[in-house]
Amino acid sequence: MPENAGRVLLAYSGGLDTSCILAWLIEQGYEVYAFMADVGQEEDFEAARVKALKVGAKKFFLKDLKREFVTELIYPAVQANCIYENVYLLGTSLARPVIARGMIEVAEQEGCDFVSHGCTGKGNDQVRFELAFYGLKPDIKVVAPWRIPVFYNRFPGRQALLQYAAEKNIPVVQTASKPWSTDENLFHISYEAGILEDPNTTPPDDMWKLTSSLEAAPATPERITIEFKAGLPIKVVADDKVYTDAVDIFDALNALGRKHGIGRIDIVENRFIGVKSRGCYESPGATILRAAHIDLEGLTLDRNVRALRDQFTTVAFSRILYNGHFFTPEREFITSAIPTSQRTVNGIVRLKLYKGNVVIEGRESEEGLYDSQQSSMDELGGFEPTDASGFIAIESIRIKKWAQANNRKGQGSVAREDVYGARA
Amino acid sequence: MPENAGRVLLAYSGGLDTSCILAWLIEQGYEVYAFMADVGQEEDFEAARVKALKVGAKKFFLKDLKREFVTELIYPAVQANCIYENVYLLGTSLARPVIARGMIEVAEQEGCDFVSHGCTGKGNDQVRFELAFYGLKPDIKVVAPWRIPVFYNRFPGRQALLQYAAEKNIPVVQTASKPWSTDENLFHISYEAGILEDPNTTPPDDMWKLTSSLEAAPATPERITIEFKAGLPIKVVADDKVYTDAVDIFDALNALGRKHGIGRIDIVENRFIGVKSRGCYESPGATILRAAHIDLEGLTLDRNVRALRDQFTTVAFSRILYNGHFFTPEREFITSAIPTSQRTVNGIVRLKLYKGNVVIEGRESEEGLYDSQQSSMDELGGFEPTDASGFIAIESIRIKKWAQANNRKGQGSVAREDVYGARA
Amino acid sequence: MPENAGRVLLAYSGGLDTSCILAWLIEQGYEVYAFMADVGQEEDFEAARVKALKVGAKKFFLKDLKREFVTELIYPAVQANCIYENVYLLGTSLARPVIARGMIEVAEQEGCDFVSHGCTGKGNDQVRFELAFYGLKPDIKVVAPWRIPVFYNRFPGRQALLQYAAEKNIPVVQTASKPWSTDENLFHISYEAGILEDPNTTPPDDMWKLTSSLEAAPATPERITIEFKAGLPIKVVADDKVYTDAVDIFDALNALGRKHGIGRIDIVENRFIGVKSRGCYESPGATILRAAHIDLEGLTLDRNVRALRDQFTTVAFSRILYNGHFFTPEREFITSAIPTSQRTVNGIVRLKLYKGNVVIEGRESEEGLYDSQQSSMDELGGFEPTDASGFIAIESIRIKKWAQANNRKGQGSVAREDVYGARA
Amino acid sequence: MPENAGRVLLAYSGGLDTSCILAWLIEQGYEVYAFMADVGQEEDFEAARVKALKVGAKKFFLKDLKREFVTELIYPAVQANCIYENVYLLGTSLARPVIARGMIEVAEQEGCDFVSHGCTGKGNDQVRFELAFYGLKPDIKVVAPWRIPVFYNRFPGRQALLQYAAEKNIPVVQTASKPWSTDENLFHISYEAGILEDPNTTPPDDMWKLTSSLEAAPATPERITIEFKAGLPIKVVADDKVYTDAVDIFDALNALGRKHGIGRIDIVENRFIGVKSRGCYESPGATILRAAHIDLEGLTLDRNVRALRDQFTTVAFSRILYNGHFFTPEREFITSAIPTSQRTVNGIVRLKLYKGNVVIEGRESEEGLYDSQQSSMDELGGFEPTDASGFIAIESIRIKKWAQANNRKGQGSVAREDVYGARA
Repeated sequence: MPENAGRVLLAYSGGLDTSCILAWLIEQGYEVYAFMADVGQEEDFEAARVKALKVGAKKFFLKDLKREFVTELIYPAVQANCIYENVYLLGTSLARPVIARGMIEVAEQEGCDFVSHGCTGKGNDQVRFELAFYGLKPDIKVVAPWRIPVFYNRFPGRQALLQYAAEKNIPVVQTASKPWSTDENLFHISYEAGILEDPNTTPPDDMWKLTSSLEAAPATPERITIEFKAGLPIKVVADDKVYTDAVDIFDALNALGRKHGIGRIDIVENRFIGVKSRGCYESPGATILRAAHIDLEGLTLDRNVRALRDQFTTVAFSRILYNGHFFTPEREFITSAIPTSQRTVNGIVRLKLYKGNVVIEGRESEEGLYDSQQSSMDELGGFEPTDASGFIAIESIRIKKWAQANNRKGQGSVAREDVYGARA
Repeated sequence: MPENAGRVLLAYSGGLDTSCILAWLIEQGYEVYAFMADVGQEEDFEAARVKALKVGAKKFFLKDLKREFVTELIYPAVQANCIYENVYLLGTSLARPVIARGMIEVAEQEGCDFVSHGCTGKGNDQVRFELAFYGLKPDIKVVAPWRIPVFYNRFPGRQALLQYAAEKNIPVVQTASKPWSTDENLFHISYEAGILEDPNTTPPDDMWKLTSSLEAAPATPERITIEFKAGLPIKVVADDKVYTDAVDIFDALNALGRKHGIGRIDIVENRFIGVKSRGCYESPGATILRAAHIDLEGLTLDRNVRALRDQFTTVAFSRILYNGHFFTPEREFITSAIPTSQRTVNGIVRLKLYKGNVVIEGRESEEGLYDSQQSSMDELGGFEPTDASGFIAIESIRIKKWAQANNRKGQGSVAREDVYGARA
Repeated sequence: MPENAGRVLLAYSGGLDTSCILAWLIEQGYEVYAFMADVGQEEDFEAARVKALKVGAKKFFLKDLKREFVTELIYPAVQANCIYENVYLLGTSLARPVIARGMIEVAEQEGCDFVSHGCTGKGNDQVRFELAFYGLKPDIKVVAPWRIPVFYNRFPGRQALLQYAAEKNIPVVQTASKPWSTDENLFHISYEAGILEDPNTTPPDDMWKLTSSLEAAPATPERITIEFKAGLPIKVVADDKVYTDAVDIFDALNALGRKHGIGRIDIVENRFIGVKSRGCYESPGATILRAAHIDLEGLTLDRNVRALRDQFTTVAFSRILYNGHFFTPEREFITSAIPTSQRTVNGIVRLKLYKGNVVIEGRESEEGLYDSQQSSMDELGGFEPTDASGFIAIESIRIKKWAQANNRKGQGSVAREDVYGARA
Repeated sequence: MPENAGRVLLAYSGGLDTSCILAWLIEQGYEVYAFMADVGQEEDFEAARVKALKVGAKKFFLKDLKREFVTELIYPAVQANCIYENVYLLGTSLARPVIARGMIEVAEQEGCDFVSHGCTGKGNDQVRFELAFYGLKPDIKVVAPWRIPVFYNRFPGRQALLQYAAEKNIPVVQTASKPWSTDENLFHISYEAGILEDPNTTPPDDMWKLTSSLEAAPATPERITIEFKAGLPIKVVADDKVYTDAVDIFDALNALGRKHGIGRIDIVENRFIGVKSRGCYESPGATILRAAHIDLEGLTLDRNVRALRDQFTTVAFSRILYNGHFFTPEREFITSAIPTSQRTVNGIVRLKLYKGNVVIEGRESEEGLYDSQQSSMDELGGFEPTDASGFIAIESIRIKKWAQANNRKGQGSVAREDVYGARA
């Protein structure tokens, strides 16, 4: 019988891994409290509670974090058009900070010396969780069994875990194990590992859980409108229903996206630890929202603000989220300028949803940065064409100087640079 | 009868505007040579030639620039994933440098003192053409009638042009004028002005010229593969046909994209002159190619190269293209690093095309930067999980310091920052 | 006698140019009010007032803008370490926004339809003033005589102005004209034009007005301390005197810098209009402050915040200031994140001033981000050296993969790349 | 007696630490070869050779890497104006890649399975060496004793090393140990640790080894010229001597800088591992060269190239160097654009060296991007002032739109934003 090793709060999922970890932590002498976060995943929380306590947890905590997930993480990311490596909308990354904060709050309130999780040693999530823990409570201690040799050498595969579960009387649900792993929350579901580790294997149709397949999606398009205020969605109208609550809006967009097959992606991405990894994701509502927000920014955001925001805020915030640097000074710095960037992003976007497509059909705003007379090719609209001559003359000053120098040196740019031919 | 004002090479389109400009230039005493570039637009070049000469051009030049358009402009932009304001693939911008270069070559060969064009004073194209002219031949002189008061005051609208055409015996094709303007080349077609100036007007179905509507696109998906070498497409296989020539590849992808309704967009963008403008575009082949190239980079491009390239090359080259800064030292600087960035982008991407969607179904490469064993969540694959502990410990050093300082000051980050609530 | 052309507020300097402009504007039928800003330049404001009224100004306004210049422009630029093209501290750029705002306030209060200035058509200041005017009052009209052909053709040189002054009874101070132009405010003085237009001409010793020459500066070093709070200087101690007021601090640093020959530069810079221009500047106090602020950030600013701020805020804000984009949405956006970046920049820097050098002699802070035990090479200080092994192992994953691929292809990086030899 | 553990190539310095490591490695069963790089440090290489062999090294290798250090590392960094955290010129970072490459070459040639070094577990150099090793030879194995518990626990301080040296008959030079550590090469010398760990301790005068103190530097200024071709120094003229060889040039500039007290700095920097660290550096020649190169770029480099290069190449290459990422794909990517950026950086800079100051006195070039007529404030020089009106009109379009919107909302920017007052 080991000494009392201290009290640990375990991020518990109800599955085989964290149930075995729970039992193993007890075996190591820890007093284990189990923690679950409701971030919108499809889960039988009550069954998980019963199971955790049965396996030996002294207490069980369930925190509903859906609202803060939406309002504190998802919506700022929407405002900043966050995306990782051109494709991934960061669904898992976004959930980690609120889960970690929920855990630290319980750990502080319950006097836990340790927090623990079931993340593997190769993934991003171990980093995201632990850096968040340390950013919130720098003296917290972390137990990461999948990085502890006595643990991972004892459990080299699923079979060893099943055997341990049998020993410890841990109930195992007799579902056929899927040949991939998933992580789900109200923003998205991810799929990785297993058969997906061959990047040339097309995911089977029945893998995709949230969205309709393109082929099965409705043959009739659906029109919706989204109204934004300061870059945040404040009203969605779809099928004669109106949604104005922050969470309701996201839920409604999810339902619409799922129905119309919107938001599936399949990529090879670069994990923070430098390993390439193949992942598939479904982010139905977020995909719609992103398309609408980007469109409205076209109408309402100043060109130079947009350019600076795209090159810095979007890039930096996306990387911060992916790498788990949410509770850091750089995140504070980067996000402190988001509200200013979104001050004018007010208006309504009209969308058509159809078989995977989010088609922009129109947009309107009272911001007044767009002026149809001014942009019109058919009328002067207060515009003096000769001004453009002056503009071009000034813009060409340095270019002419450079071209003159080139010509003097015989390096005129008329010369061809056939990148394609050069390759051959 | 005016003095001989000199010889001018006019960018001629065969339409009403440039035909009237041709006649007007002659009226001003210029000897006018007409120039047309074949950049893949649908056009009756012979009819245009006949018309130009009939209106009074002394010579007519047609240059087929399709291949250099594809190999010198489009493919580098594909390699760099160029895009403007998140949405626009830069189809018009890409054609301008080759057209301008073609004109300058003819102007030099024919001893023209002037070049002229029919671009309006509010648009991007005047800037793109003229900066390109000056970057190639800094002493060229430009006649831009739509910025010359005596011209634009004389022709305040279409009616005045039609009347002048009648006076000058300029044949006018009796097609009903479309309530928008277009610009076409083998990369794309653009639509702007007219009814599109209200950003809330949905473009009519019959506006879209190139692509099938989503609803009318085939109900059966089509699978294709694209092979890349150094980031350039070198082989497309579709419907049992194989394309390996640079131009053939682009043409084949265009045909596929058109068939499956791929590549329509509708945006409000910010012109270089600072005016917001609504534009619609169809870029079928380019949309497919972009999706495939980005995907393959996931498998074959180093993470840090990708991040730097995305933030630096993609952003800078896209802006350079949009603003017409192709023949400039900064373009030379930016593109000189593209080949290095693409050295490892070799492999094959498998795609499904269906009703506007470009679905990645798999990819393969022999580069070896992806290692399924290493990324596997199910096996160690030469990976030492304890290394990740060290990595996280080091990564957390500065974060812990900051968190300790926060805690000392009572500014712990556990505090909520509800951006959504803050707005209300 | 011309019609009443309206009321114009003229930025008046008391010199020959703006006195002639004043008279000329009256000649054109304007009612002219004269405006002077006290931004710390050495000037006989009373003499200027008398002269303006004598020449014909209906009213004269003098605004003391020194405090807002320091607190609203200079100090944010210090917080962001602003600098243009590695060298120029932006002294003229920083003054323009407060002067323009002062003018617009008077123009609104006095019902002026126009504002006017004596800037030439080739410089930065015309752009800075006018974009500031428009950003504050978009319907203001600007009269820029040096860009009006009837004016600049009438006054092709100094002689023509002198003759006009004689005609108009404008008093001309009989100082020998210096062969360069200057602009002075409490931040700096600039020198350009005249003999400086040859970039290879060394400025004569007697040109430099503010600072002691290096040779003549005291042979004894002087020690001072600067205390910062949130990146702003709040206390300077020098020669047993203590300065705590925002303006007093800047004045004291200026006196110290002037005495010790600090802050002279000589550069060729790129104006916003694309012309290269040679300028010399003296910024004594600002140079000291910049060195101290940058040093303290080393001790107190998180690494990642610093890196993002340097690449983003510093670069963007410097360019915004130089190009006269202060009253714009992008400036609002960029500066809105400065306070967050400076939250921890608290502490004291000790400096030695000696013959042009600002030598950092020490710094201290209670922020606690620096930990001498942790950084010590002589003790472990709570640091686990094996963590670094894990860090390096993880950091090397992608590099090894790339090196393996290189080796397979026979492209190992051991190969030399002698950039110097390649040149020969 | 341990088994034969394999052959290891040890980076040997001749000092106490690496001599003890040498003996200890032998004790662990390794066959040890000793390696020294001559990168310009002041060192008795022959004495070190004798000592290494005496302690037990089987072979000793000395490589003169000075030329490649200058031409392959230093000069590209000069071309890119590399600097870390505004102050540090990267002298140690620059030497590491050539030393690591020298070692890997010997290791391959001599069939060593291992490389070893004496870097501590808290510093940058362990990372720089090892990432360079892995980037060159991914299968090399590294022995880092200061990160191996049995080693660092056995040698907790200098006393334990001295005792071990006595046991092993390792000769110890009886110099009084300095209360700081140094690293020297021909680019610079660094000082850290010991008494410098208190960031408020002023370094003692006798610490600085290379440069004259400001007070003791000559009372007479010295004039020199540096000629650049493609951004590289190709001729230095000083005191009637002419230097044209790459290494001679750097040596000559070093001698000049040392004489005139140029290039001392004292900073708190952020190490790659996230720890803040205080360092002092002397980089005499590099400081002169940097000032001259930056100045010449003002005259000869296009504005937009400069801006893009500053924000990306300089920042990225500096970070790559500091973090030891030289043999990586991102370094290849970033440096591949340097030659294009430097194509026009040709010309001569005249400098005055005096008591720590590098004063630019003039510069000339035949590139022709500077045009004194064009920049002249006193003549039109082919410049049309009305063009500037057009330029400003176009530049103000979006600013006016934004200002109109502000005014409609009552959010005019005339409102004060006193950052200084806000703080109080």
